[in-house]
Amino acid sequence: MTKVLLDCDPGIDDALALALIAGSPTLDLVGVTTVGGNVDLALTTANALALREFLDLGDVPVAPGSPVALMRDNVRASHVHGATGLGAAVLPPATKPAADGHAVDLIVDTLRAAPGEITLIATGPLTNVALAVRKEPRIVDWANDLVIMGGSYTRGNHNPAAEFNIITDPEAAAIVFDAAWVPTMIGLDVTLKARMTSALLDRMWGLGRLSDLLVPAAQSYAQVTETSGPAIHDACAVAYVVDPSLFTTVPAVVNVETAGRYTTGMTVVDFNLRDRAPSAQVATDLDVGGFWDLMLSSYKRLGARLG
Amino acid sequence: MTKVLLDCDPGIDDALALALIAGSPTLDLVGVTTVGGNVDLALTTANALALREFLDLGDVPVAPGSPVALMRDNVRASHVHGATGLGAAVLPPATKPAADGHAVDLIVDTLRAAPGEITLIATGPLTNVALAVRKEPRIVDWANDLVIMGGSYTRGNHNPAAEFNIITDPEAAAIVFDAAWVPTMIGLDVTLKARMTSALLDRMWGLGRLSDLLVPAAQSYAQVTETSGPAIHDACAVAYVVDPSLFTTVPAVVNVETAGRYTTGMTVVDFNLRDRAPSAQVATDLDVGGFWDLMLSSYKRLGARLG
Amino acid sequence: MTKVLLDCDPGIDDALALALIAGSPTLDLVGVTTVGGNVDLALTTANALALREFLDLGDVPVAPGSPVALMRDNVRASHVHGATGLGAAVLPPATKPAADGHAVDLIVDTLRAAPGEITLIATGPLTNVALAVRKEPRIVDWANDLVIMGGSYTRGNHNPAAEFNIITDPEAAAIVFDAAWVPTMIGLDVTLKARMTSALLDRMWGLGRLSDLLVPAAQSYAQVTETSGPAIHDACAVAYVVDPSLFTTVPAVVNVETAGRYTTGMTVVDFNLRDRAPSAQVATDLDVGGFWDLMLSSYKRLGARLG
Amino acid sequence: MTKVLLDCDPGIDDALALALIAGSPTLDLVGVTTVGGNVDLALTTANALALREFLDLGDVPVAPGSPVALMRDNVRASHVHGATGLGAAVLPPATKPAADGHAVDLIVDTLRAAPGEITLIATGPLTNVALAVRKEPRIVDWANDLVIMGGSYTRGNHNPAAEFNIITDPEAAAIVFDAAWVPTMIGLDVTLKARMTSALLDRMWGLGRLSDLLVPAAQSYAQVTETSGPAIHDACAVAYVVDPSLFTTVPAVVNVETAGRYTTGMTVVDFNLRDRAPSAQVATDLDVGGFWDLMLSSYKRLGARLG
Repeated sequence: MTKVLLDCDPGIDDALALALIAGSPTLDLVGVTTVGGNVDLALTTANALALREFLDLGDVPVAPGSPVALMRDNVRASHVHGATGLGAAVLPPATKPAADGHAVDLIVDTLRAAPGEITLIATGPLTNVALAVRKEPRIVDWANDLVIMGGSYTRGNHNPAAEFNIITDPEAAAIVFDAAWVPTMIGLDVTLKARMTSALLDRMWGLGRLSDLLVPAAQSYAQVTETSGPAIHDACAVAYVVDPSLFTTVPAVVNVETAGRYTTGMTVVDFNLRDRAPSAQVATDLDVGGFWDLMLSSYKRLGARLG
Repeated sequence: MTKVLLDCDPGIDDALALALIAGSPTLDLVGVTTVGGNVDLALTTANALALREFLDLGDVPVAPGSPVALMRDNVRASHVHGATGLGAAVLPPATKPAADGHAVDLIVDTLRAAPGEITLIATGPLTNVALAVRKEPRIVDWANDLVIMGGSYTRGNHNPAAEFNIITDPEAAAIVFDAAWVPTMIGLDVTLKARMTSALLDRMWGLGRLSDLLVPAAQSYAQVTETSGPAIHDACAVAYVVDPSLFTTVPAVVNVETAGRYTTGMTVVDFNLRDRAPSAQVATDLDVGGFWDLMLSSYKRLGARLG
Repeated sequence: MTKVLLDCDPGIDDALALALIAGSPTLDLVGVTTVGGNVDLALTTANALALREFLDLGDVPVAPGSPVALMRDNVRASHVHGATGLGAAVLPPATKPAADGHAVDLIVDTLRAAPGEITLIATGPLTNVALAVRKEPRIVDWANDLVIMGGSYTRGNHNPAAEFNIITDPEAAAIVFDAAWVPTMIGLDVTLKARMTSALLDRMWGLGRLSDLLVPAAQSYAQVTETSGPAIHDACAVAYVVDPSLFTTVPAVVNVETAGRYTTGMTVVDFNLRDRAPSAQVATDLDVGGFWDLMLSSYKRLGARLG
Repeated sequence: MTKVLLDCDPGIDDALALALIAGSPTLDLVGVTTVGGNVDLALTTANALALREFLDLGDVPVAPGSPVALMRDNVRASHVHGATGLGAAVLPPATKPAADGHAVDLIVDTLRAAPGEITLIATGPLTNVALAVRKEPRIVDWANDLVIMGGSYTRGNHNPAAEFNIITDPEAAAIVFDAAWVPTMIGLDVTLKARMTSALLDRMWGLGRLSDLLVPAAQSYAQVTETSGPAIHDACAVAYVVDPSLFTTVPAVVNVETAGRYTTGMTVVDFNLRDRAPSAQVATDLDVGGFWDLMLSSYKRLGARLG
């Protein structure tokens, strides 16, 4: 079992990522923290709480984090994720409250309690993770791994240079990539291959009440994104933790631009290490068939459990 | 009585500021937090702990904060403050430990517990204050006031553009000045008038064991700074809280440069508000005689108490 | 006789500077080049041509230069200099045309023809001078001196950080200050002392038809600038060439900020050379009485000549 | 016949581009200007002069331009192009001198003399072109087209973000792309497809004395560049002028980053025009077979002519 802590901003693909965790027999979810990103923090937190109950995640703590980026005005993507952040999916509202305390403290305390055991997965802007690194620098040693959905080494999606999660808080991303760990970067270069085609979407039916989440969420996501099917970015980061062999990764020095006029929020990925230690392992390829096999088998298992 | 919480990096002039608090009958010190700045965090914390006992400050909690700036390599000033941070002054080491918990939490919890009552005085880099603002944005409402020693509206001291506290963590300073409070900025424009001449230094003798701190600290400070006497920057921020009438302040929009090639760390102070709300009250003049009257009477009172 | 070539953007104070040249028996004006600045190039050129005839400057060539800054949208100051650029002064339109050729070539060719003899005085944005340096790098050796009205080592006038001439073309200014000459910088620090009080303005009457330029120009200038009298910035640069002893100058390294968010266009002046060669001589003080003596005697001489 | 003016920094691939011009029956070369780039200006000029005679280009004027970038320290690529700039190729030194006058004036005067007729091809840093635009803004109307070898919309070659020609003078590139023409950008995205494989290199033999240029130049180029064969970047720009149908181009807004910490010199290419007019036509694909057919037939024709 791999213990995972998810820092997220649900967000349709965050929800699909959380469902993948819930359906993965080898993952043990020990906490969820939320951050403002795809939609505002109040919504990402409400969605995380609703998902905890809908996906039967028990008493795993859900702690809200930062409503704003470190130094930038908020960027939001409700044109993609809908007014609620979950597209057309409608979940029963949560009945249980968020944990006391702040996401930063849940991250720090959880990692401190089990050094070397917990993999942190970040699928939103990196504000919480950066604040945790600055409040307790030792988390970079305590974390087993940090897997980031974010960035790109070719082109962005928010603009030609920058991917959404990174440009939403570029200073936080710079802090996280500059810290003394070697996170795994799952960027657009691979996540844009993880597209839910209409054939794949058809297979989201018949999974019991889980389909009530998956189908409308994916349908609305499909309507606003690429015609070749929406890319399920965040689930890729979870898939990497379940089965790293689905990905090719290459060590690189990653610098986050924070001073550019047209390039702020860009992850500048240098695969030519020269004499430098790598600052990240960057995913460069994805076994697309294997990814969808993992997704579908996990969702099928979860659907059966949820009824 | 004005309740004050001091965030500091002692530092010779921080020590003189803390002594001013200790000798002020109208100030009630409710906490001390430390930050890396003049010297490293381990030293600023050790100095704060030693000063707590030397100055008979009782059980006021002392909590260490951030050892590093948000996004910059550390800048230190041990060429000014000596290897220990207190110049030639040698205090008995502290016998009591620091508080459990992080400076950020002491700031947040203290302000939350007494909304509208506590004045935060920041005499070091603004890392802790910025992290506190991002962890709990409501502190900007809870604080009675924030008084900052830092910045300048003419020239810097670390370089032609930037003052030391601000350039040590310009991103933190930007977060703090951009937040929705109106701090009082006590910059070089006034603190450079608060010089301890040799005549004033002579009056630091004869204050009992307090002189064991004041005299060697001030003497070593004088040796490394301006020939016209060292400027007691940090004590000015405390003096403002004791008696604001010693200062002229003018409302202004203050922006902290973080992107310049030669100007990062500069506080760009615009007194021409046009249609903008002020973001700070900026000190523009100091009643130098009144300041030293306050300093000397407070030190005399404290010296008598300490014996 | 000192040969001078004036690069200018008249502009009220440029006109007063040109009149000072015209009235100085020790200056020999060998050329005038114009640049877009206070007002558009078409107007600065028309004004320079009109002034050539009004001030009886003979056949000195007037060549227009760059209508735009190297890399920035144009900044103009017609709120100060009026729609024509000469305030309320109305001169007869010029009857003789501008020189063939571009300002850059007039600068390069004039300096090449008399190496070491000609002092270049720049009272507008530095676009032409920068283009000349890039087209013919040897002009930095050929010029006897370059005297720049521009910049400040304390505060700006266009905004808190930047003076007008520099912010209008900061990249040009960076090229000029970085080139291998040591120009004299006459900045706001001294030019703001050269204020035409109402008593001084009264003395602009009775100079014959020269008063038709000086009085309305200065009156309209006074209405839109400081209540203590308008600063005659550009004339200071000419006064320095006539009599350097009126000024205190200090060697410094001057860097022009081009990357700042709030500070672009600032001249960052470091008087602490350490092991660096100075890049400019920066004026730090002005003999105000001597300056006005020079101005008034020159204007009186010129007024008598013009009739 | 298409009249072309080549601004270049030979450079191996510049030499191959000039040979393509010489062998193209539909191109009429009206001028060559040189700029510091691959190697220093003295060498690029000497190479251009030697090539003029070696390639039998008659009296076409060759004018040297800027030895330095507008605002940056020089970047050179002699590790790629060899100490002379032509790799292992050794040409007879030129016997005829460069034209009087500066590259900027040759560009301006040539375009002015035949408005709408001349295509400017730029295969080096854009310093000369930018200076020409600033000295005579009307060239943007006079040029029939501007074809630039430079930039990339994915990754760079000098570093992960920037291509060599652009990073060598990013401010010049920004001026050129921001001016009111719509140049054609032939970037790494297509030029990296134009690789001279060893099979292609074999076909450079047997072209008479032309082979004395082509073979050693290409061989040494191959040794220092990609194992899959060196990309003949600059010849692509000429090929586009000969036969645009070999390329796919897409209108885009191109901004050149000049303020980034890691991204300066990047061409940020936005194909999503929204309501903006395109600032360039960006090549996105190349008919590789057609390109080499054109190259080989042109070289064969030229080889026969040169003997």
